[in-house]
This record gives sequence, structure tokens and C-alpha cells, in this order.
Amino acid sequence: MAEQIDPEEPRGGRSVRLVRLMTRLMADPGLSITLQELGHATGAAKSTLSEDVAAIDRALEAEGRGYVERTLGPSGGVRYLPFPAPDKAEQTLDDLAVELSQPDRRLQGEFLYLTDIVFSPLWVGRLGEIFASLFAAGRPDMVLTVETKGIPLALMTARALGIPLAVARREAGMTEGPALGLNYLSGTARRIGTMSLARRAVPEGSRVLIIDDFLKGGGTAQGLIDMMAEFNAEVTGVGVLIATRQPEQKLISDYVPLLELSVDGEGSGTNFQVIRRLNVAPHGQGGQR
Amino acid sequence: MAEQIDPEEPRGGRSVRLVRLMTRLMADPGLSITLQELGHATGAAKSTLSEDVAAIDRALEAEGRGYVERTLGPSGGVRYLPFPAPDKAEQTLDDLAVELSQPDRRLQGEFLYLTDIVFSPLWVGRLGEIFASLFAAGRPDMVLTVETKGIPLALMTARALGIPLAVARREAGMTEGPALGLNYLSGTARRIGTMSLARRAVPEGSRVLIIDDFLKGGGTAQGLIDMMAEFNAEVTGVGVLIATRQPEQKLISDYVPLLELSVDGEGSGTNFQVIRRLNVAPHGQGGQR
Repeated sequence: MAEQIDPEEPRGGRSVRLVRLMTRLMADPGLSITLQELGHATGAAKSTLSEDVAAIDRALEAEGRGYVERTLGPSGGVRYLPFPAPDKAEQTLDDLAVELSQPDRRLQGEFLYLTDIVFSPLWVGRLGEIFASLFAAGRPDMVLTVETKGIPLALMTARALGIPLAVARREAGMTEGPALGLNYLSGTARRIGTMSLARRAVPEGSRVLIIDDFLKGGGTAQGLIDMMAEFNAEVTGVGVLIATRQPEQKLISDYVPLLELSVDGEGSGTNFQVIRRLNVAPHGQGGQR
Repeated sequence: MAEQIDPEEPRGGRSVRLVRLMTRLMADPGLSITLQELGHATGAAKSTLSEDVAAIDRALEAEGRGYVERTLGPSGGVRYLPFPAPDKAEQTLDDLAVELSQPDRRLQGEFLYLTDIVFSPLWVGRLGEIFASLFAAGRPDMVLTVETKGIPLALMTARALGIPLAVARREAGMTEGPALGLNYLSGTARRIGTMSLARRAVPEGSRVLIIDDFLKGGGTAQGLIDMMAEFNAEVTGVGVLIATRQPEQKLISDYVPLLELSVDGEGSGTNFQVIRRLNVAPHGQGGQR
């Protein structure tokens, strides 16, 4: 006996079908699913699915949580791009700037306690979606960071774009096979740093988006850029969560900071302030529709 | 003028409302949202929302992608627990075991190339949900790992449970404030390792779930357990992606491996095999409904 499938109300009606579609789209943001696969899973006709996807798209827009992109052609499909609406992105960054300006985050030596934020699934989820929306237009096919504190941000950026992540290590590990090592000059500490990355981690010709948590002198970011030249890969952008205002002269100039940290004065009179640096609206090309 | 709100079909009808609810639930898994908040966002009555949530729950179950948990009481709310159905979890692990058994993953010195997997947003998303489902019953309130390769797995486990992540460092960083350092004996290499964790990263009395990518002798895991004793925190479980079959005698016995790596023979005759170790079904208490 054939399964009972009414194309208009298959397996529990439109509502259930919408939620099932939504589940699949949101579970793997950035990844394309063909209408054929969706039809197979839900028993619905292509035309019905198109209407469903349009309804999902409207609901996502109403929530300010991105949209569903449709690709045409025989292998055409749909994918969820979880790019926050500009006002939502700016609100997230303003909230974070307030949180990071709390006095108890000041550490000795002009450092800011960031660890809980850069390892918080909630914060890095939101921030990764912001990075993804800003850099999608460059069509990166992988994200690169260097251990340790940038990893969650870079992971969630890669997740929102549906692309893989590579992580450069501070020491060459034995467990990653042939690796390329690089010495670089730390922009502020004036010391030599080393980083290493497995040869197979970045295929030749890759389009690489660099994401990190903190940028002061720019030496680490420049090291990652130099490393990508060695891999014959192209850097499509550099995004950092926080850049320091000082030194104004950094080793790189072409990067996008979400927040800025300024430190004035010295000793106990030191004044820390974190402000939102990014204005999302003018970046409207960067993946926002 | 008041906004037009028909409690049965507010702002675009039931379908749109369902998708909007779903978006909110899936955007922050593990986190509770009150029905009041949902009502405010959608304009729907509580009874309507209850029906909607039940429909979402049925659709999630049909997809094998977890369920919506309702908590009672005045602050009662709903949260999405993205725990995969046992057959889906086992399928994920079987697929991963096949992938990891590919001959080109064998590195010199009996190592396996794992880096692309442990940094893949897709794989760590699935694996984090599996860990979350296995350990939810222990009611952890944070996840702990040690840098570097366990970070994405631990992050996605924390995300699925709606709890924060702490990451122990191999060296004490200057940028994390007062930290507790610990020397530990690596179980296999017979060398002394060090790890350090900021004092404020784990509040006293925390219930901590330890997640790591690889377990051979068990020294690192034992180090993390010892460290939690110093923080007066309770360890609710230890989950690892891959444990090696050898040595059979490990420093810890109470851990849950998802996969097992066996290495037989020596030199060019070495035989690597990765098999699924976990049978999810008997763990049915661990968060599965």
C-alpha cells in the first residue's frame, strides 16, 4: 500500500511541515538543501515547498534573524543565512560594550578580562553571525584563526557561513602531519612569535576569512596573512572582536573591528572604555539583503 | 489606535507565528524563554502558545532533533533541547568512524589526523548535541575543557545545554587575572604537563562537565578533575570523542568515549581502526525522553 500523502496537508499539516523545514534549515545554517531532499523528507510538492520557504523567510525577517537564500538551476536549493538585522547587530554590540566596560573587568597591565565572553556560547553565537553577515559578500570558503581565544568566534562565524575552520597553532603539533611554520613580529611586544598550520588544513586557492578576538599592534593578523600567502590562499577579509585605539599606527590597516578599547592614564588612574566601533548600516553590501 | 491583534491569527497567521517561535527556540538552545516573553513577541494568548509549542515538539520529534521542555511555575517557560534521537546519534558516530578510518588519516607515530573534524562546525555541532544528550541528566551548570582541540566540541556541548564554557590553558596567561596552576602527569608520555585556569572562570560549587577530544592515558582528564577539586567544584561527567584501546589501564575509569581507536602492529604494517564505542540506547536516562 502506498503511504497516504496529500500534497496539500502531508504528514501532519502545513504547520508541522513548516516547523520540520525550519528545523532542517536552522540546524545547518549556510548549507544548501535541495528542494528534492526537502520534498522527500516532507512528502510535499515543489510548489508547496516554495510557498513554505517564502513563509519561513517572512517570519525570519520579522524576527530580524536573517533569511532563506534560494539558488536556482537543476541543483537549486535553499539555505538559511542567520545574518542579524543591522539594528539587532548594533544592539548586541552596544550591550557587549556596556558589559566589557564594567570596572571589575580591568586586570593589571592594561588588560581586560574577556575570557568568559569569548568562550560564551551565547555571545560567540551572536558575534559569529555578525561577522558572517559582514564578510559574506567576499565569498570566503574557509575561516582561519590562531589559538586560543579566537577559536569560538571563528567557529561560530564559519558555522553561520556553512564553511570549515582552520586553526593555526602556537607550536607545531606532532599530531597534524606536515605543517608550515612561520615566525612573525608581534606588533606591540616586539617579540618574535611562532605559528604553525598543517599543510592539508588550507587547500591551495582557498578564499580565507581571518577572525580573531583581539588586535593591538596587528602582528598576529599580519602573520596569518603572510601564512596564507605561503599557502597560495587569498584573504577575503580580517575581522576582530576588539581593536585597541593605541597604537594608532598598526601593522595592518584593512581590518574590521566590532568594538574598540581605549585606555587613558596610568596606574590606578587608568580609565578603560569599550565602545562600539562598527556601524552596520553602511556595510549594507556585506551580506545584508 | 491599538494594533490589530486577533488572538487566533496574529501577525500573519499560525504558520508565521510557529516559525517565529521556532526561530527563537532554536537560536538559543538550552535557554528558557517564558511564555510571557513569547506572548509579547507574537501577540498570541498563552493557551494558543501552548498548542503551538506542542506542535513544534511533535515536529522536532518527527525529525529526531530533540524536544521542547516545559517548566512549570510562575516563571515557567519553554526551552529547546537539541538532543538527537538515539538512532540519529549512532548514525552520526558510525559515519564519523568510517571517515576516521580512511587510510590517508594515518600520521607518523601512531597519530590520526583529526584536526579537520574537531574544527568542523558541522561535526562538532552534531557531536556536541550527542554529548549534551548523554550528560544532561547530571545537570551540569558549566562545561570545562583544556586547549586546544577540544574547544569546539566543548563549546557546542555547552551551547546545546545552554550553559557557559571554561577553558584551561597550557600556560598561565597574563590576560586572565589570578589563576590556579596545576602540574599533572601525562598518563602515557610520562612527562609533566601544566595547566592553568582563571580563578573567576569556575565559581565555587559549580557542577562541571568535562569534554575533550582525545583520551589515551587519562592524565589530562585526571588533571582537570584534580583542578576542579581545587575550585571546590563537582565533576558531573567526563566525555571524550575518541579513546584509545591501548593502554587498557588508564588513569581514570569513569568516562564516556564516543569512539575507540585501536592500533595494531608496528611500522608500515600498522593497522588503525576507529569504531563506535557508544551505544546510545542503554544511556536512555541521560537526557533522552
